[in-house]
Amino acid sequence: MILRYARQAHGDREIVSRLIDEPLWRYNYAGLADRVEQAAKALLRLGVKPGDRVTTLAWNTHRHLEVFYAVTGLGAVLHTANPRLSDEQIAYTINHAGSGVLLYDRNLAAVVERLKPQLPQVGIFVSLTAQPLDDATLCYEDLIGAESGPLEWPVFGENAAAFLCYTSGTTGDPKGVLYSHRAIVLHAMGAGLNAAFGFTAFDVVMPCSSLYHATAWGLPFVAPVCGAKLVLPGDKMDGASLHRLIVDEGVTFTGGVPTIWTMYLAYLDQIGERPGNLKRVMIGGSAVPRAMAASFKQKYEVETLQIWGMTETTPLGVIASPTPQLAALGEEEMQEVIWSRQGRLQFGIELRIVDEGGSPVAWDGGTPGALQVRGPWVVQRYFRQDKDAADAEGWFDTGDVATIDKRGFMRITDRTKDVIKSGGEWISSIDLENFAAGCPGVKIAAVVAAHHPKWEERPILIIETHDGATVSKADVLAYLEPKIVKWWTPDDVIFASIPLTATGKIDKKVLRRTYRDHLTAPS
Amino acid sequence: MILRYARQAHGDREIVSRLIDEPLWRYNYAGLADRVEQAAKALLRLGVKPGDRVTTLAWNTHRHLEVFYAVTGLGAVLHTANPRLSDEQIAYTINHAGSGVLLYDRNLAAVVERLKPQLPQVGIFVSLTAQPLDDATLCYEDLIGAESGPLEWPVFGENAAAFLCYTSGTTGDPKGVLYSHRAIVLHAMGAGLNAAFGFTAFDVVMPCSSLYHATAWGLPFVAPVCGAKLVLPGDKMDGASLHRLIVDEGVTFTGGVPTIWTMYLAYLDQIGERPGNLKRVMIGGSAVPRAMAASFKQKYEVETLQIWGMTETTPLGVIASPTPQLAALGEEEMQEVIWSRQGRLQFGIELRIVDEGGSPVAWDGGTPGALQVRGPWVVQRYFRQDKDAADAEGWFDTGDVATIDKRGFMRITDRTKDVIKSGGEWISSIDLENFAAGCPGVKIAAVVAAHHPKWEERPILIIETHDGATVSKADVLAYLEPKIVKWWTPDDVIFASIPLTATGKIDKKVLRRTYRDHLTAPS
Repeated sequence: MILRYARQAHGDREIVSRLIDEPLWRYNYAGLADRVEQAAKALLRLGVKPGDRVTTLAWNTHRHLEVFYAVTGLGAVLHTANPRLSDEQIAYTINHAGSGVLLYDRNLAAVVERLKPQLPQVGIFVSLTAQPLDDATLCYEDLIGAESGPLEWPVFGENAAAFLCYTSGTTGDPKGVLYSHRAIVLHAMGAGLNAAFGFTAFDVVMPCSSLYHATAWGLPFVAPVCGAKLVLPGDKMDGASLHRLIVDEGVTFTGGVPTIWTMYLAYLDQIGERPGNLKRVMIGGSAVPRAMAASFKQKYEVETLQIWGMTETTPLGVIASPTPQLAALGEEEMQEVIWSRQGRLQFGIELRIVDEGGSPVAWDGGTPGALQVRGPWVVQRYFRQDKDAADAEGWFDTGDVATIDKRGFMRITDRTKDVIKSGGEWISSIDLENFAAGCPGVKIAAVVAAHHPKWEERPILIIETHDGATVSKADVLAYLEPKIVKWWTPDDVIFASIPLTATGKIDKKVLRRTYRDHLTAPS
Repeated sequence: MILRYARQAHGDREIVSRLIDEPLWRYNYAGLADRVEQAAKALLRLGVKPGDRVTTLAWNTHRHLEVFYAVTGLGAVLHTANPRLSDEQIAYTINHAGSGVLLYDRNLAAVVERLKPQLPQVGIFVSLTAQPLDDATLCYEDLIGAESGPLEWPVFGENAAAFLCYTSGTTGDPKGVLYSHRAIVLHAMGAGLNAAFGFTAFDVVMPCSSLYHATAWGLPFVAPVCGAKLVLPGDKMDGASLHRLIVDEGVTFTGGVPTIWTMYLAYLDQIGERPGNLKRVMIGGSAVPRAMAASFKQKYEVETLQIWGMTETTPLGVIASPTPQLAALGEEEMQEVIWSRQGRLQFGIELRIVDEGGSPVAWDGGTPGALQVRGPWVVQRYFRQDKDAADAEGWFDTGDVATIDKRGFMRITDRTKDVIKSGGEWISSIDLENFAAGCPGVKIAAVVAAHHPKWEERPILIIETHDGATVSKADVLAYLEPKIVKWWTPDDVIFASIPLTATGKIDKKVLRRTYRDHLTAPS
């Protein structure tokens, strides 16, 4: 439906794609629709049937986009494997998906070679290249070059699965989330509204979040629904490569994790140029750094939009977009809200925050609760599990603790498992850490709960100092005192080396184990 | 879902309503949601059950809006009767709907009194007033004033009927079209995209098309989905009344039939003022007069958007909104396309044009075909009919003849029953009439088909001249000659008085009867 619309209504609107070691590719939605039909015919010839799973291990290119539409248009399910996971996790997801076909980019061929012995179900390997990589491997352009002419697409129900995306699985095995055709279309329509992305046919959209990661915020569907030009950056996220596309292709909207934009802003500073026609940068995956948002706004008049979502929400949850109520507060105050909240309630996805008993708590911007979401693009049950992940009314618990203000703006204050439950009230470990991290001499601050005989839990602050810095417990508490309410004050401050996970985050599991009985154990 | 979202996300966004002989009413979406719950409780108390039909005979007021949400939220079906129909037709639709409750505005009380004897199924009459009109009639504010507190809304399937709207029925009885909850929500999301209305939370929307007429282009749903302020003009569509609301309330978007805007532009000229903050005027129901669009644009920088739809399409079909391809042609050429086409393909509604054999014809902007539409908000079957109105694939024949250009812009060229089928090619009676109407001395021009032994049908032009004008057949043909292709030339030009229908349109039925055998009958 989306592809047919884009071909008919925006057939000559451009799509530009970087590839791996190939020249820039350029065509349009009509060209996309034609090649998607060729790709679908090739997949049919390879034996792909409705319901089958097909895996890609690929970057943001037009070929990956074609596979998005070809596989799902056939009623098969596209599993977009994440090349950033460990070999074991990639193999786990492909085997769990039960894929029989694997399509991959040239520079991931070595990964595929390593994985092959662990992928007994995969019978067909296709490199997403113009030329065959070797005699044993099929090549995408050869396959689709052998096909031509229109395809009579099969008809199936809107609840049929289209995509299979796995959570990154920081604890335990990755979990698979199926996105139905219904969810994809409704999500694209919701994301096209002005409260969310709100593209016009004049926009030029460059997704710098990965196509394999929850379909890159659905941008491959929202852009054609709105008739926006699409620019695909391949795997080149360095400042120079992005700048070339932003300027040459007239990019108006882009988005990705903060790291990319830190590099890009540094690059702009270095070369002394402006970011072309860029109007908006969407930042997801972690909180928007204030300095970054201010740089974009003050130097280049580029708006920074914070966004929040999960693999389980297809993935759009909330975006911080302006409203008249915020504008009435003045520009500075409005930016403050937009940059400090994950975003506002979108049509199509319901939010609520609940206490430990499951009762909804107030939307006052201060009272935290477990964040739950519901709606037509929220997971009901993980793939191959025998129990629902959402409750009987469709509410899915995100594992986050959040506040919602009276304007419907949501702010995540903690992970549920990290929040400190003190005498029936919740203390945000993240907020406390952020405050403590500002104390002179502090390199890393971590807060975990310790059992407490009276209050159930109380916060313990663990601090790793900069080399050579001298910081005392009294210094830290004095620094925190004007910033926090009294009952948030940590019951102890401990100076120690802080354990990190493989991805560089504070390893709270280790800290919780170490300090769980810190306040109750006999000294 | 829409109301809950508006209350949570845009609770303090205003709604302003004119009433019949009452002061201006002002509240917000939270207030709307509260009063809708009161109204729903009152309807429950009156015995309204899921599936029941309730009729309104009412203008664009906040009370009518409340009844929209209260009736449909209960799972009952709201039939919005059209006060502009004849008494017989109004009674026919209410009886055909099988409504048991009738809510009506104060200034329609006389109509209701006249109709009562013809409405045996209506047991409950409610005036949409603050005070009872008489001892025998219930009064809306009394009813809802007796209710308070939240309501546990019933849960029902998305395909349940929400609204029952009747076609205006120029030939035969009006036909009822059911709008499901699913259709209403998808239509609102589609209409919220920038290709259609594209409201932001900063917009102020005033529907001047009637709430009873296919839900006023769905604006009562699109506005809350987008968080736009809503201004309801009651039944006052004169220039002064509209201007007061446009200026005082900061209206940015309005829409209605051309007549209203002709009056409004004349009023602006007269008082020498500008239309406040108005940005866009949407014109539906008939083609946009060029002079009106030019006035809005050149004098006030207000964009005119042409829109087309039918009761059968909930009602959004197409809107003429700008695209980069058009903008590349230059401002003047873009306006030409936007003002001369009904609009462009929207996501969610498919169009096709087919020849007499039912085969699709080319989208070249020149080849006409019978216009068919398909999609989640297109009628499948009229209410209480035993056969589908759409074919097995969901295509509904609109009864219009149209062209579609390569950019997906559609232009209606005729009604199917009026088009002239000459030697396998179609001649647009409307286009010929428009050309002929420009000939000096011509007051009204009508074109109908006459049987022809060789070409099957040929056009006959009937002309009514202005009093005192002298126009010859040769004058008319000479005037047409440079404007049309040769084979469109009418086979005869007849000077006669042209019969009109009750609503002032050319009575083609009479003309067809009169001239059917004009070219074959023995002279």
